[in-house]
Amino acid sequence: MKIELKPIGFVERGLPERGADRKSFISTIRIFDEYVEGLAGLEEYSHIFVIWYMDRVSGLELRVRPRRLPDAPEVGIFATRFPPRPNPIGLTVAELVSLEPPRIYVRNLDAWTGSPVLDIKPYDVLDVVERPKMPEWLMRFLNA
Amino acid sequence: MKIELKPIGFVERGLPERGADRKSFISTIRIFDEYVEGLAGLEEYSHIFVIWYMDRVSGLELRVRPRRLPDAPEVGIFATRFPPRPNPIGLTVAELVSLEPPRIYVRNLDAWTGSPVLDIKPYDVLDVVERPKMPEWLMRFLNA
Repeated sequence: MKIELKPIGFVERGLPERGADRKSFISTIRIFDEYVEGLAGLEEYSHIFVIWYMDRVSGLELRVRPRRLPDAPEVGIFATRFPPRPNPIGLTVAELVSLEPPRIYVRNLDAWTGSPVLDIKPYDVLDVVERPKMPEWLMRFLNA
Repeated sequence: MKIELKPIGFVERGLPERGADRKSFISTIRIFDEYVEGLAGLEEYSHIFVIWYMDRVSGLELRVRPRRLPDAPEVGIFATRFPPRPNPIGLTVAELVSLEPPRIYVRNLDAWTGSPVLDIKPYDVLDVVERPKMPEWLMRFLNA
């Protein structure tokens, strides 16, 4: 079974390959004209999910060693947000800075310039988990 | 440009069409044998993102009236989680009840039995937004 999707737009200005702090860097998403009408009302949310396609990723690794932590255990790809997944879909919770159709300005997006965008969804209170449990290696990495 | 994805598994037991409280109902996801190794370590998280494909949805509506609220405004599809999107991707934050490879037992999944699953990602503290801003109509609906 094959599932065929199409971009609804692309990351016009993405995170530079090196440096740039995700939390402060403002990325631009350009939605294609035919879908712009679908953005109406999005400005009432403070945060959105950006579902994008990691088109620069190829290959599949079912086991990975997390985030350059030498003492972290090897774990399955689905226990990480790493790119070399069966379907290289990127998922990011981004802060909506401003909506200026056909463009969306966001903070915290980790997509590269040119990445195809597959969907935009609003983030709401049902997406909030208080104190989610995470592995010890990830807490160390995030310093959480 | 076309993007081709493939299921990594499917919802073996999903939410019944009618009734059933998402918060308590336990759904089963069956991961295909070839990807099961990728689940290692997932049990250390309390919550996961399930990215699934709404294969029973066809058609596109760029403007929708939210959630059967007669006095809600018409809004763009991207300002809702409604199905008739350009790419009918479902995204759900689910509570991980137990991991018994090749199966994942979760609560709060709103996918139907048989839905293809595209990706599983761990939910971590970076996905938590404190007090996300939402439209007034949605707050009324959620009684938040």
